[in-house]
Amino acid sequence: MDKEKNEFDFPLYLKKKRDIINGYLEKILFKCNMEKELTQAMSHSVMAGGKRLRPVLSMAAAEACSGDPAYALPGACAIEMIHTYSLIHDDLPAMDDDDLRRGKPTCHKQFSEATAILAGDGLLTHGFQILSKPELFFKTFPEKGVLLDIIAIISDAAGVNGMVEGQMMDMQSESIPDKNLEYLKTMHRMKTGKMIMASVAAGAVSIGAGQKEQNALMIYAEKTGLAFQVIDDILNIEGDPEIMGKAKGSDAVNHKLTFPGLIGLEESKQYAKKLVNEAVNSLEIFRKNALPLRAIAQYILKRQK
Amino acid sequence: MDKEKNEFDFPLYLKKKRDIINGYLEKILFKCNMEKELTQAMSHSVMAGGKRLRPVLSMAAAEACSGDPAYALPGACAIEMIHTYSLIHDDLPAMDDDDLRRGKPTCHKQFSEATAILAGDGLLTHGFQILSKPELFFKTFPEKGVLLDIIAIISDAAGVNGMVEGQMMDMQSESIPDKNLEYLKTMHRMKTGKMIMASVAAGAVSIGAGQKEQNALMIYAEKTGLAFQVIDDILNIEGDPEIMGKAKGSDAVNHKLTFPGLIGLEESKQYAKKLVNEAVNSLEIFRKNALPLRAIAQYILKRQK
Repeated sequence: MDKEKNEFDFPLYLKKKRDIINGYLEKILFKCNMEKELTQAMSHSVMAGGKRLRPVLSMAAAEACSGDPAYALPGACAIEMIHTYSLIHDDLPAMDDDDLRRGKPTCHKQFSEATAILAGDGLLTHGFQILSKPELFFKTFPEKGVLLDIIAIISDAAGVNGMVEGQMMDMQSESIPDKNLEYLKTMHRMKTGKMIMASVAAGAVSIGAGQKEQNALMIYAEKTGLAFQVIDDILNIEGDPEIMGKAKGSDAVNHKLTFPGLIGLEESKQYAKKLVNEAVNSLEIFRKNALPLRAIAQYILKRQK
Repeated sequence: MDKEKNEFDFPLYLKKKRDIINGYLEKILFKCNMEKELTQAMSHSVMAGGKRLRPVLSMAAAEACSGDPAYALPGACAIEMIHTYSLIHDDLPAMDDDDLRRGKPTCHKQFSEATAILAGDGLLTHGFQILSKPELFFKTFPEKGVLLDIIAIISDAAGVNGMVEGQMMDMQSESIPDKNLEYLKTMHRMKTGKMIMASVAAGAVSIGAGQKEQNALMIYAEKTGLAFQVIDDILNIEGDPEIMGKAKGSDAVNHKLTFPGLIGLEESKQYAKKLVNEAVNSLEIFRKNALPLRAIAQYILKRQK
């Protein structure tokens, strides 16, 4: 954070944080041996130019609690690797069957289906490796008990009680007769919400945040995570395919359950705005330390990809 | 162990240990909510009647070091779940495309390809959940620092430095011109050897074994793991399909790289016997406490499925 300035320079903040995260992700992949096709496939997807929203949230959460964000890095990198594995598997022919991701060929298109499955498996497993052996990759990291707590948070959010079940609900949604807003919200809470909450929680836990701080952050993360998904649905209708790096209108073509589809486009925009306001309002106790978290919520509302 | 008896009753030992492990695995799956299709798919494969070789090895390793094998259970169950995920993904159409596993339809045949991918992902992730939150599933478990060490051991053996790379090497082996014994051994070391070594190491670490004990156990595990794979290749030629629950001769049909294919059937049998002898000889320091480990090595040599 540039404390000298009166106004908070969010684009600069985002760039600095992304550079740090990308540096560590590259280093982690390099240690997996870049001569192997498996590592190349993992790297293809990890380094494809993602927004790094989740790891930046982790670091910003640590900062909101007046902690050193360097301690949040092992969890932040593990989360980004696990997030990337989920994209690789979701894109597979048996799932969403997507050819493009972030404007580049999806992992199974660039390599092969078998390689993409294994690259996903490798990233998921390696996320837990870097959290259990952080000394191999990081200069600064939380103590063993805290690392175990972070693994508990992430494995809960990513597994059968979270992301994996969310993707399952997404796959099943087409065969469910009375799709409603409740189903859609639960699906998104599982599929993306819990991992966004885990990103914020892991960042806070990594620097030893208190319960009151964690509670406030969970309201922020829950609202922000849902807003993120509402905007995603809106961008699928209104977004610029050039900027997004993927085709627009695909949700309608695939008869996907979406917020605009259920409550309308205008209503969805209002809903996203309301969620972001609530998210920002939950951060009062952190005062100026929450500038990055507030800016991230606004960024999610205004993002174009 | 029935200490009253002069002779060690291995079938009884194996049955008792399997019952304990199956009980915990069922309890873990039940907590994932058996009404969900995802949990049903996970359970279909986990409870399909596996040998439970890896978790039994974990418990036997703890016993060899005079420890309470109950402490090895979280690691043992995690390893069996991760082993099962690897079978589900290996059986997928994009990989080995198998219809039968342990005499039952493979996960993607019973459910769907998408469900099988997600069931595998769920099992892998949940393995780390039970190790980071053992209090939800077990009465007895190692302290936090030890649990983190076990996660480090397992995530290393299961990931890009082990099992996942081993499966990648297996997929690539058809396109490699000069397949040789060294490639085959490295592939098996990665694909199955490291997880068998991790099973033994996790069991030993869970009860605080010393370095001397761990070193002896690693020789045992390495030799036993390789013997297991040599026998697997032999059974693919000579085994009874009724007992094995899968077709025989499939390796030859699929032009798989095997020990009998490279060094001949008789030589392979001698090699397996030699490996098991070396494995058993490494256990001298444990004296009577290693009776189960010795019996497991002999069981691997004589197994028919």
